[in-house]
Amino acid sequence: MPIRLSQPGARRVAVLGAGSWGTTFSKVLADGGSDVAIWARRTELAREIAQGKRNSDYLPGINLPRTLWASPNIAEVLDGAEMVFVSVPSQSLRENLVAVRDIIPREAIVVSLMKGVERGTARRMSQVIQEELNADPAQVAVISGPNLALEIAREEPTASVVSSENLQTATLVAMAARTDYLRSFVNTDVIGTEFGGVLKNLIAVAIGIVDGVGYGENTKASIITRGLVEMTEFAVAYGGKAETLAGLAGLGDLIATCESPLSRNNTAGRLLGQGYSFTDVVAQMNQTAEGLASVAPILELAMAKGVEMPIVSQVAEVLAGTMNPRDIAPHLTSAGDEPQPER
Amino acid sequence: MPIRLSQPGARRVAVLGAGSWGTTFSKVLADGGSDVAIWARRTELAREIAQGKRNSDYLPGINLPRTLWASPNIAEVLDGAEMVFVSVPSQSLRENLVAVRDIIPREAIVVSLMKGVERGTARRMSQVIQEELNADPAQVAVISGPNLALEIAREEPTASVVSSENLQTATLVAMAARTDYLRSFVNTDVIGTEFGGVLKNLIAVAIGIVDGVGYGENTKASIITRGLVEMTEFAVAYGGKAETLAGLAGLGDLIATCESPLSRNNTAGRLLGQGYSFTDVVAQMNQTAEGLASVAPILELAMAKGVEMPIVSQVAEVLAGTMNPRDIAPHLTSAGDEPQPER
Repeated sequence: MPIRLSQPGARRVAVLGAGSWGTTFSKVLADGGSDVAIWARRTELAREIAQGKRNSDYLPGINLPRTLWASPNIAEVLDGAEMVFVSVPSQSLRENLVAVRDIIPREAIVVSLMKGVERGTARRMSQVIQEELNADPAQVAVISGPNLALEIAREEPTASVVSSENLQTATLVAMAARTDYLRSFVNTDVIGTEFGGVLKNLIAVAIGIVDGVGYGENTKASIITRGLVEMTEFAVAYGGKAETLAGLAGLGDLIATCESPLSRNNTAGRLLGQGYSFTDVVAQMNQTAEGLASVAPILELAMAKGVEMPIVSQVAEVLAGTMNPRDIAPHLTSAGDEPQPER
Repeated sequence: MPIRLSQPGARRVAVLGAGSWGTTFSKVLADGGSDVAIWARRTELAREIAQGKRNSDYLPGINLPRTLWASPNIAEVLDGAEMVFVSVPSQSLRENLVAVRDIIPREAIVVSLMKGVERGTARRMSQVIQEELNADPAQVAVISGPNLALEIAREEPTASVVSSENLQTATLVAMAARTDYLRSFVNTDVIGTEFGGVLKNLIAVAIGIVDGVGYGENTKASIITRGLVEMTEFAVAYGGKAETLAGLAGLGDLIATCESPLSRNNTAGRLLGQGYSFTDVVAQMNQTAEGLASVAPILELAMAKGVEMPIVSQVAEVLAGTMNPRDIAPHLTSAGDEPQPER
C-alpha cells in the first residue's frame, strides 16, 4: 500500500466500505479538508483507490482526491479517526461492528451512511450502531438526502441532512461534510431522517411498477404525493417529525430515487409492471432490491401502530401476484363514493 | 354543425375553450356521465370535435366520447348549462367573460380550469371570474392537480383537486369530474389551490435551467424540495393553507410539471440553461412561457409580504443575465457559514 499522506492540522476521518456511496462520501470529506482513510475489504480495490485514485468498478471515470487513502487493514484505517463513517451493506452492519468494536477510537463520532432496517429486528442502522458499540446516542449521527452517489462524485450540486440527537454532533459532522457542491443541513430527528431513507425505497418500487405499465408523469406525481403522506404518517407514528419528511431526507430523497431510472428499486418495479413475477424479478436481478425486501417488515410495523399505507399495500399485492400492476393507483381507489378531502 | 345528442336525465355542462386541457376535461366530464358542449372559437375546430370526435391539433390520436358536442356559438353552448368550465388563455379571461356575462345561466357553477394570475392586477383566475360575473364565491370553483392533459386524455390514472369556498359546490363539481381514470378530491382553500398552479411554473423554469446545464436528479430533487417550501410560504402569506401546497394541487402538480420535458416552462428554462439569453428564448419559443411572465409579478407580491423566494429570485437573475445558470443552486448558497436547520 502507498503511504498515507497527512495534511498538517487536518481532521482524520475513517470511512468503512468502498462501494459507490462510501467512496463518494470519502471524496466529499477529502474535498472538505479532512484526511480520509477508506477501508476496502478487497486488497486490489484498496490499492486502486490509494494508488490510482480511482474506484473504477463503482465510480467509473471519477478521479478521487490525492488526500484519500485506502487499506484492507481496518485497524490502520481507524487509527486516530475523530469520525467514523459507516457504509457497509445494511444487513452486514452488525457483524462488521462486532469486528471493530474494540479498535474504534473511544471518542469518535460514528456516522451511518446506510439506508435500511435490519431484517428480523427491524432496527434502524443508528440503533444497531448504538447497540453493538455500546455508544451514547449523542455520539452517533446519520446522513441522508437526495444523494445519488455518482452525481455527487461528478460534483453536481445537492444538499444532505446530518441528524443526531445531539445538535453539536450533527453540526460537527455537517462542517466536515461540506464542499462547494454539497451543503449539509442539520436536525435532531434521527428517527424521521432514517425512516425517510427506508420508506422511499418502497414508493420507488411503486413508481417503477407504473413505469413498467407505461403510465406517465401525472400518475407518478400523484403516487409520490400520496406516498409522502403515508411515509410521514408512518414516521410520525414511530416518533419522527413531519417536517423532516417534508424536507431533503424525505421528499428530496424520495424524488431523486423515484426519478433515477438506474436505481435497483425502480428496475425491480419496472419488471413487475411489465408482468414478470416476483420470483422472475429476483432471479433476473441477481440480488434482491432493498425496497422489495422491506415491504413485509414495514407493513408489519405499520400495522402495529395502526398506520394505513395503501401504496405499500398495493405493492405487496403486486408482489404476491394478487393485483394486476395496471390497477396500482391507490389514490384512485382508497376512498368511498363521496368526494373526499385529500387527507 | 351536427345536432346535439342528449342523454335522458344527464347533467348539461359547458366548457369554454377547446385547447388541449379544455378538450381533455370535456372528455372527463362526458366519460363521467354529463352532456357536454364545448365552445371552440374556430368553426373548423368545433366541427372536427362535434362531427369527427377528434381534436387533432391539440390531442392527436385521441378519440373523444360521442356525447361530446361543440359549437362556435357560445350562446348555444351555454344554453341550459348547470356548470360552466372555463379554459381560455389566462390573459384573455376577462374579455371572454365580458362577452358571456349576460347569457351565462344565473344559477350555474363556474369552474376555472386555468392556472395563472392576471398581468397588471395580479388577480387569481377565480377572482377575475367573481368580479366580471359579479358571482357569489360559493358559486365559483377551481380545479388543479398533476394534470398533464394528454396523459389524462389517454386515460392514465391520476387525481385532481376541486376547490371552492363552498364545500357543497366543490363536491358537486368533483362528482361530475370523476371517471375510472380520474379521481377528484375536494377542499375549500381556493387561494392555496390556485397559487399552487401558478407558482409551480416558476420552479419548473428553475428545473429546466438545471436540465439545460446538465445536472441530474439530486440537484433537481433538492430544488423541488426547497421550491415547495417557498411556494408554501408565499401561499400561506396570502391566506392559503400549507396542507394544500403539500397535496396534489401543490407538490403533485409541481412534480408532474417539473418532470414533463414537453412543458413550455421546462423548455424555456432549458434554453436559458444552455446559455441562450432571455430575448433569444422568447424569440425562439414564439410565445412567452407562463412561468417566465410570472417571475416579476410574483417576486413583487412576495416582497410585499416579506416572503423570501431564493429559487425564484435566482431564476430572475438568470433571466436578467446577471447570474450564470451553472450557479443556480439556492439550496447551496442561501445561508451563512454555520450548518443550519433546513428551515
